[in-house]
Amino acid sequence: MQGLMMKQELMISDLIEHAAKVHGSREIYTLETDRSEHTYNWGACAARTRKLANALREAGVKPGDRVATIAWNNYRHIEIYYAVSGIGAIVHTINPRLDPKQIAWMIGHAEDKFVMFDTTFGPIVDGIYDLCPTVEKWICLTDADTKPDYKAPVTDYESLIEGASDEIAWPRFDENTASALCYTSGTTGNPKGVLYSHRSTVLHAMAGAFNDVIGGGSNDTILAVVPMFHVCTWGLVYSAAMVGAKLVMPGPGLDGASLTKMIHQEGVTLMGGVPTVWLGIYNHIKQSGDNVSGVRKALVGGSALSESLLRAYELDLGIPMQQGWGMTETSPLGAAYTPYPGADLTDYEGTVKHKLLAGRRIFGIDMMIVDDEGRQLPEDGKTSGHLLAKGPWVASGYFKGEGSDAFTDDGWFRTGDVAALHPDGYLEITDRSKDVIKSGGEWVSSIEVENAACDHPHVAMAACIGLHHEKWQERPFLIVQPVPGKQPAKSEIRDCILAKCAKWWLPDAIVYRDKLPLGATGKILKRQLKEEYRDFDLEKAS
Amino acid sequence: MQGLMMKQELMISDLIEHAAKVHGSREIYTLETDRSEHTYNWGACAARTRKLANALREAGVKPGDRVATIAWNNYRHIEIYYAVSGIGAIVHTINPRLDPKQIAWMIGHAEDKFVMFDTTFGPIVDGIYDLCPTVEKWICLTDADTKPDYKAPVTDYESLIEGASDEIAWPRFDENTASALCYTSGTTGNPKGVLYSHRSTVLHAMAGAFNDVIGGGSNDTILAVVPMFHVCTWGLVYSAAMVGAKLVMPGPGLDGASLTKMIHQEGVTLMGGVPTVWLGIYNHIKQSGDNVSGVRKALVGGSALSESLLRAYELDLGIPMQQGWGMTETSPLGAAYTPYPGADLTDYEGTVKHKLLAGRRIFGIDMMIVDDEGRQLPEDGKTSGHLLAKGPWVASGYFKGEGSDAFTDDGWFRTGDVAALHPDGYLEITDRSKDVIKSGGEWVSSIEVENAACDHPHVAMAACIGLHHEKWQERPFLIVQPVPGKQPAKSEIRDCILAKCAKWWLPDAIVYRDKLPLGATGKILKRQLKEEYRDFDLEKAS
Repeated sequence: MQGLMMKQELMISDLIEHAAKVHGSREIYTLETDRSEHTYNWGACAARTRKLANALREAGVKPGDRVATIAWNNYRHIEIYYAVSGIGAIVHTINPRLDPKQIAWMIGHAEDKFVMFDTTFGPIVDGIYDLCPTVEKWICLTDADTKPDYKAPVTDYESLIEGASDEIAWPRFDENTASALCYTSGTTGNPKGVLYSHRSTVLHAMAGAFNDVIGGGSNDTILAVVPMFHVCTWGLVYSAAMVGAKLVMPGPGLDGASLTKMIHQEGVTLMGGVPTVWLGIYNHIKQSGDNVSGVRKALVGGSALSESLLRAYELDLGIPMQQGWGMTETSPLGAAYTPYPGADLTDYEGTVKHKLLAGRRIFGIDMMIVDDEGRQLPEDGKTSGHLLAKGPWVASGYFKGEGSDAFTDDGWFRTGDVAALHPDGYLEITDRSKDVIKSGGEWVSSIEVENAACDHPHVAMAACIGLHHEKWQERPFLIVQPVPGKQPAKSEIRDCILAKCAKWWLPDAIVYRDKLPLGATGKILKRQLKEEYRDFDLEKAS
Repeated sequence: MQGLMMKQELMISDLIEHAAKVHGSREIYTLETDRSEHTYNWGACAARTRKLANALREAGVKPGDRVATIAWNNYRHIEIYYAVSGIGAIVHTINPRLDPKQIAWMIGHAEDKFVMFDTTFGPIVDGIYDLCPTVEKWICLTDADTKPDYKAPVTDYESLIEGASDEIAWPRFDENTASALCYTSGTTGNPKGVLYSHRSTVLHAMAGAFNDVIGGGSNDTILAVVPMFHVCTWGLVYSAAMVGAKLVMPGPGLDGASLTKMIHQEGVTLMGGVPTVWLGIYNHIKQSGDNVSGVRKALVGGSALSESLLRAYELDLGIPMQQGWGMTETSPLGAAYTPYPGADLTDYEGTVKHKLLAGRRIFGIDMMIVDDEGRQLPEDGKTSGHLLAKGPWVASGYFKGEGSDAFTDDGWFRTGDVAALHPDGYLEITDRSKDVIKSGGEWVSSIEVENAACDHPHVAMAACIGLHHEKWQERPFLIVQPVPGKQPAKSEIRDCILAKCAKWWLPDAIVYRDKLPLGATGKILKRQLKEEYRDFDLEKAS
């Protein structure tokens, strides 16, 4: 028997219209690409979003068409998010830090029809426009007066929307329709496209509004440092509209000084970003003597939160940190840290380690760990296995049917993470499947060895990789990037590792290197290191 | 183009399994029907829910079958919620305060196959069992040892589930399948059934978990005073499982002393109920000197929050109150109060009136006010009109196709409330459509007149109804129930009304009455009063 409730599709356009109707006067602040400041509100944002939607339709964008962005976090980018999805087209966010050739490849693969970009990225566009035959229109996010000269044939955003109506009857359609396309960072093989739907986006934004997850409300001011090209801003742009939060969009101002100023000036209460961003703010505050009172939570994702950063924020700045776990394929919210009920939070030393877990499973996301043969492993907090995930905001496949080996026959997504699941839904990431080192039939967690090495004050970064070994199959090998001007003794680094890891995890050799190679999202390119050091002789080194 | 995200139906069984897996050790406390105390956890609850589901299937309950409950808020009732919906059957919650004949009518109308009841309501069952031909099994919520003797053929709950397995592969099916049936209080005509679906229930529970709505988290302890037979406990039983909150179920202990003890003993942080319940707790505390520290919010719904109750809680007890709006047809959450961003909450006198608004619109629920001809009225905070609502957890019709005049042709539900919509999504209920008094072409709000009259310290309750008038069509008439032993002067009551209302709203006559007639949900039966006083001569009285 069917229920008798309204069959209303979950639509992204409902988010922006809700924000306009109920939270119309709530502000959106942007540090613009030229570093001027721009403030308007959800009401004005919705009006301009409708203009853009009408203009895009007029210019020939049809349902299912892809519209790419190469842009900072700013108000026009928000309008693009809502307008493109709202008319049933697909917003494809591109990471500007990628190699221009890879960007051109992505635009071709996605068959983008329009590309909308900030002036900062004009040189990229000039370099690739004649390599992108699918693109009909290049649009820079300025008005006509401030539009730079380009080799490429470029229209400006304000001229595009100028004559368009700010009224629209948003189309309503199947909620499973694609709304956004985001490519994985692609540390192995070509990047693969994850195609979000209206349903997955709205459900994910609802979960983000849970008190235990991000938990923003109409009285919050959310600083979205996480880029809009990175997994749809972790959903912050959607959930902010849903709950009527004020948004602070830092544009190119990602340094500690700029962010600290915005936190102060705009009254930020919640903020989300990767550890390096938080480190930048912390260092700035320590140097300048600024303070950042009023922030009630800093969300950390993208890469693991270190104990030193956690302590710096919680004990020194008085800002609670919350670690979350997710990936492009999980929209990304899969787990968010909340203390265990009854935990004595006044006992900082007794609870701090627990906070370094990747988070606690969010309703909607199911998880399981399996061994190499796909057999389920116990959730005892000790056993590590390949992490599988499932849920209404988890990918079921990649764009154009690629990478189908990432999905099991019974409907799970292989995250590529190695994890331990604790009995109460807590998730502990111990490694990446491709980075885990298999020594004598047992697994060595490259991440744990790296973290332990980083406990040495003169180690800036470390990469632990497995090198081939006759007897043990693989043995750990550590590449250390020292703090500039320092040379930590290998014996001291070994002591740090022995303090936290099993003795047989100790790397057979340690080498120094000025700069570890990083990918476009700031992750160490271990694949490149494995290639470089393939013939390194572990027996001779130490 | 379709998105590439997992097509996972929203299922109520996912809620209980999530709670078991992620929050298995979190407790559920029950004050039992015999006033003994019972505590177990979400893990044990899920295991018994699976046993019940298997037992019900074994006993012949099929998808779409209705299983009724006449029961308090207790752990077995929670198991029934999840087990019945989980196997695709429909849980039909019955208000035990209804007249037994009306209960028998409802059971027949719903065609309930099983009826599960607490021993308190045994006399009802004994009185009606031979009037209920659809019922195959009467089950009392006890074990075999404590089962009372009944005239009716009654099985006990524990014997039913005893041999059943605590493992189940929950069926997955269309998320629009009916999950629960709840009849409206039916102050006009026969009660009408609202048929919730799995989708509407899960989406509604997600909205309930928003920080600005109920906002419970895994560290909260929720006291659900609102009955489980009243609009599915406002969704609290579902959202508690979703976020892993501890639940406190008061059973028959709805008096101030029992509730205060539970708040203390179990560490309640959030609680939901109707104003009379909160008044009971307040009066108990004032008499006993008990305190209730640790509660971070008391949710108020069902009927309007008075300024005196709000002040009593916020200023005297230090417990913030949050008013919400909804009805059976809206699942019920439609609006929940949050202060306007930037409001100076340290200025209590300047913000207290605003808190008496019915709430702020929640994402998912759209609202509109219209005049008698269905034309949309402005959302200016001044104009009142018939309130329409729309959204994925709003009814699209009533069980068996009844009451179709409550739905507009373009898909809105006529709430029957008269309201003003403020520009920022705030909702102000000014009357019920059937109670509003039409005098000289203008509307008089019966509720505002009643509230003003109740400002007199010797007025316990008041009902304002419209009586026929030759010249003005209708004129207001006030029936006052004085505080026992008091006789407030009519002139003083008039002064109270004049202090808050337009002069022409002043009732043409005021009469006293020891006891105003109340319906099963505690609302004044104005229809009965209109009938009784139909021939009252306004001209002669004063």
